Amino acid sequence: MSASTSTQSTRIVLASRPDGTPTPDNFRTEVVDLPEVGDGQLLVRVVYLSLDPYMRGRMSTAKSYAAHVELGDVMVGGTVCQVVESRAAGVDVGDYVLAGAGWQSHAVVDAAAVRKLDPQAAPISTALGVLGMPGFTAYSGLLKIGQPKPGETVAVAAATGPVGSAVGQIAKRKGARTVGIAGGPEKCRALTEEFGFDVALDHRDPEFAKKLKDAVPEGIDVYFENVGGAVQDAVWPLLNTYARIPVCGLVAQYNGVVEERADRLPGFFSSVLTKSLTIRGFIQTEFVKEMYGDFLRDASAWVRDGSLKYREDIVDGLENAPTAFIGMLAGKNFGKLLVRVSPEE
Amino acid sequence: MSASTSTQSTRIVLASRPDGTPTPDNFRTEVVDLPEVGDGQLLVRVVYLSLDPYMRGRMSTAKSYAAHVELGDVMVGGTVCQVVESRAAGVDVGDYVLAGAGWQSHAVVDAAAVRKLDPQAAPISTALGVLGMPGFTAYSGLLKIGQPKPGETVAVAAATGPVGSAVGQIAKRKGARTVGIAGGPEKCRALTEEFGFDVALDHRDPEFAKKLKDAVPEGIDVYFENVGGAVQDAVWPLLNTYARIPVCGLVAQYNGVVEERADRLPGFFSSVLTKSLTIRGFIQTEFVKEMYGDFLRDASAWVRDGSLKYREDIVDGLENAPTAFIGMLAGKNFGKLLVRVSPEE
Repeated sequence: MSASTSTQSTRIVLASRPDGTPTPDNFRTEVVDLPEVGDGQLLVRVVYLSLDPYMRGRMSTAKSYAAHVELGDVMVGGTVCQVVESRAAGVDVGDYVLAGAGWQSHAVVDAAAVRKLDPQAAPISTALGVLGMPGFTAYSGLLKIGQPKPGETVAVAAATGPVGSAVGQIAKRKGARTVGIAGGPEKCRALTEEFGFDVALDHRDPEFAKKLKDAVPEGIDVYFENVGGAVQDAVWPLLNTYARIPVCGLVAQYNGVVEERADRLPGFFSSVLTKSLTIRGFIQTEFVKEMYGDFLRDASAWVRDGSLKYREDIVDGLENAPTAFIGMLAGKNFGKLLVRVSPEE
Repeated sequence: MSASTSTQSTRIVLASRPDGTPTPDNFRTEVVDLPEVGDGQLLVRVVYLSLDPYMRGRMSTAKSYAAHVELGDVMVGGTVCQVVESRAAGVDVGDYVLAGAGWQSHAVVDAAAVRKLDPQAAPISTALGVLGMPGFTAYSGLLKIGQPKPGETVAVAAATGPVGSAVGQIAKRKGARTVGIAGGPEKCRALTEEFGFDVALDHRDPEFAKKLKDAVPEGIDVYFENVGGAVQDAVWPLLNTYARIPVCGLVAQYNGVVEERADRLPGFFSSVLTKSLTIRGFIQTEFVKEMYGDFLRDASAWVRDGSLKYREDIVDGLENAPTAFIGMLAGKNFGKLLVRVSPEE
């Protein structure tokens, strides 16, 4: 149990906005009294907190696809929680729910905003990863925008991450040849041995661009973009006519460090034109109504039969969330990064 | 009639490759003997030669969507021709045909590669403009990629050009609000008075970016990109979430003059992500099979009933093609640029 009582919450708030890479100073821990549980509400204990790259955007005031976190407010985040007190029909004490409780130990949430989880169907942590937002990002972006066809080549950056690893496996299932890109030999080994990519490439290899070129003799038809930066540079010249580029993240540039270099935008647009490329930014929420049911049905079945593999990187203790988050932005995690805020039972 | 006889052709060939903006020196005029007319072939007299921005790409060896013109070869181009001699069933002497005869006075062409034109249905020159490749570029790119919905705002660059003017009129027909961008007051007047745009803006106005912003209080949902450069810069910050950007040309950057400026690509990708943008390069040939029949039916009807207006800028004499072409790349033409190589009758 956390140090706070059930009427208090230990929480991590945004103390200051980062200038480039976030530092531990940007966060502050507080203990606050929770409000009374009202009608239709739940008091929940946070079990798992999801740490995701999009949170970097919420720390800044730059325009993004979602509102930023105000200074002094609790950091946002998806969580798996257990219900401690319920004033809502259909939700009982002891139930596990998916909620957006943020970086804290306890919260009072509206029952209408949570989804009940079945711990018998899949480990509850998967609701934040392969069966949650990252898994759905992979599923919707790949199938709706990437549309891989049998025999095509699909390249995936950050390919051991929760989005990338699912993209590769779903693309393979659709008959595509898959090229996974990750940092370091250990991750590259997992790409082929664990996630079934046809080719694994280490972007830290000084010969990376050349090796990528050699690995795709027929070019790249789908590039699932969740990184940007140097990987993007290497992929770009290898794209085929009519290639599709779903863009769901740019973690390499989230910290805002802009390299001094000549303007690449005109050259980029020339490629778009001469190769009839499709570049499409997206946030998975766009496709929830249309595809979430299909996703849960398909991905749950694939996880159950072992054909959709996933990896979790679990850090113990809410107090370690800032360091873990900062490390993730530098690619130090290996698999879906979760904080175990309190034990499952 | 041209100075050449019917067994000779006066032609303009590529003499040298341009370094930046083409100059008259890059072209050379020759008189060549034509081959015998074989079975299934036609000897044609070129009446109209179409001059289009894509030809700049063919003059260079840089990778493009089509093969470049070899040094000493005749410059490529769409033409409307009259048949002088026919050895093909179904095509008679005197018929008008759409052919790709290039920058020359006469040619021997395969009858299978031409399309017969009906001079009663529409002026034959329109087969190179509003009822030809430029019109179909507008129709297919706007409807297939831009997909304007009633009440949305559609911005069009080079809006008095043969593509842009059709884009604006078709978007309007679909219920969108249309903002046309062109260079100079005369063209801007035509945008509203002739082509029915809701707003006309002069990109040469020093206040252009501000005026564009004021003109689109609800942002831009479709930006039909056929120019690039400074217009693109001004449009980008005004794009709405889920905006669509069909990219069919980049005439502002065809001459390869790259401004010294900081790299805009990371910022561009941030916009793509945060606004869920769709950028899609295309060449109209991609959509011919699927949409050309619909286009000819719709656009012919709209031209006949006067609801789809077009403007032609006709230059007399093949010898003036190089100067007219160079002027077009600088925006000097006003409407679809054609060279009248020989009289219609």
